[in-house]
Amino acid sequence: MSTFLQRPGRVALVGAGPGDPELLTVRALRLLAAADVVVHDELVSDDVLALARPGAVRIAVGKRKGRGHAQREIEAILVAQAHRHGLVVRLKGGDPFLFGRGGEERAALAAHGIAVEVVPGISSAMAAPAAIGVPVTHRGTANACTIISGHVLDDYDWSALARLGGTIVVLMGASTAHAVAGRLLAAGRPADEPVAIVRSATTPRQHHVILRLGDLADPACRVESPSVIVIGRVVEQAAVLSPALAGARCGTM
Amino acid sequence: MSTFLQRPGRVALVGAGPGDPELLTVRALRLLAAADVVVHDELVSDDVLALARPGAVRIAVGKRKGRGHAQREIEAILVAQAHRHGLVVRLKGGDPFLFGRGGEERAALAAHGIAVEVVPGISSAMAAPAAIGVPVTHRGTANACTIISGHVLDDYDWSALARLGGTIVVLMGASTAHAVAGRLLAAGRPADEPVAIVRSATTPRQHHVILRLGDLADPACRVESPSVIVIGRVVEQAAVLSPALAGARCGTM
Repeated sequence: MSTFLQRPGRVALVGAGPGDPELLTVRALRLLAAADVVVHDELVSDDVLALARPGAVRIAVGKRKGRGHAQREIEAILVAQAHRHGLVVRLKGGDPFLFGRGGEERAALAAHGIAVEVVPGISSAMAAPAAIGVPVTHRGTANACTIISGHVLDDYDWSALARLGGTIVVLMGASTAHAVAGRLLAAGRPADEPVAIVRSATTPRQHHVILRLGDLADPACRVESPSVIVIGRVVEQAAVLSPALAGARCGTM
Repeated sequence: MSTFLQRPGRVALVGAGPGDPELLTVRALRLLAAADVVVHDELVSDDVLALARPGAVRIAVGKRKGRGHAQREIEAILVAQAHRHGLVVRLKGGDPFLFGRGGEERAALAAHGIAVEVVPGISSAMAAPAAIGVPVTHRGTANACTIISGHVLDDYDWSALARLGGTIVVLMGASTAHAVAGRLLAAGRPADEPVAIVRSATTPRQHHVILRLGDLADPACRVESPSVIVIGRVVEQAAVLSPALAGARCGTM
C-alpha cells in the first residue's frame, strides 16, 4: 500500500506558554517528547524547543517583520506534514486560541480530515503581569480584564474600552503602544493611570518598567518587542516588588 | 535555638488549571511533589490533589455556598502554615491572579515577611472554550476578549461591555447567567448571539450546551456550577465539533 493511501497523522495545536519551560503544561511536554515534527513560531523560546524529541524535525514559521510565512502557507505546511508523519506538534507562543490564530489552523486541518487536539497554554496576558506581581483582577481595584491586540487598533470602540474600567492587557503592542495610550487618554482614561510594560516575561531577559498612561502616549516612547502592556490600577500591586512607580519614565525600557 | 526564631517557610501560590491534571504546569507539578502542606480550594480536582507529595498535609479551604472559610481566615492559615513548614503550596483552581484573590494572599504573606512565588495556571476562561473547540479570539470575528465575574454584576458598565464587541467570558456565573444575558440584551447585544455554557471543563464530567443569548435570559434557565459562559460569535466555531447551535435550548444543560 502506498503511503499516500494511509490515514494522515494528527496535529496538536499546543500552547508553549510565555517562555519559561517550567510553565509548559504536562500535556505539552508529553507531546513535544513524542513529536515527529515541531512547527513553531519565532516567539517560542530555545529552552522550550530543546524539550522536543531529539529526532523531531523542526520547522520555524515565524511571521515577524514581514520576513516570514503567510498564514495560508503555515496551514499548508501543517497539512503536508500531517500526511507524512504520525504526530505534528504546532507549537505557538502563549495560548493557541488567544490571538494565536489557532482557530484558523484547526479549521484548515479539519477541512482536510486531519484530527486536531488543542492544548491550552499559559498566555503572556496573564503570565507577564504575574511575573512582576500584578494580578489582572484584584478585589476593589479591577473586576474585569480585557485583552486586546496592538495590531488592530481601528477595530476597537475606544470609548467603550475606556468606560468599561478594569484591566486592559495589550498583546503584540510594542510598535503601537503610544497610539493605544493616546486613544485611551482621548477616550477619558486618566493620564496618571499606571501602566506596566513587561518585556520577554518569564525568560532570563525579562525586564519591566512602570510608568503612567500620559507618559506612554509620548510618540518618543519606544517599547521593544515582545512586550506585554498592562494598563490599570492593578499595576500598583507591583510596587511591592518594585519601587519604580513613583519615578519611572518611558525611555528606561 | 527555638523553632520560633527560625525563618518562616515559603508559600507558592499555584494555579491548578481547569481540572485535567495534564493541564498543570511543569512547575506546579514539581511544587506539589515537594510540598509539605497543600492548602486548596474546593474547585481543585481530586486528580490534581493526588499529585501532591504523599506525606503532605492537605487543608481544604472551600468558600462555596457560605459553608466555608472567609478570605482573612485563609490568609491566617497560610501565614501559620508557613511558620511551621518549609514549603506551603496554595493551590487554586485556574489561575491565582485571575479572579483567584491571589493578589490579596500575596499581600498578606508579604506583610508577614513570607517569601511568595506565583505560578500562573491555565484559566478555565481560556480552557473551557478551547475544550469545545472555541477560540476566544478569531480573525474577523472577535479581536478582544473580556473576562468578568458573575458575582459582581453591579460593578460593570453593561452599555460599555455590550458596545465593546469581542468575546465575553463569565467566570463564577452559574447562578447569575440569566441576569448577565438580560443586562447584555438590555444594553443592545442581539438575542441571537450564540452562547456556550461549559460545565466542569476538561474533566471526565465535562458537558456543554450551545444556545442563544435570548434563551439564556429566561429566568427559568438554570446553569450548574462550576460553569464557564462564553458569549460571542466565536461560539459558532464550536459547530465543527457540535451541531447543537441550530436547535439547543436552555434546560438541556
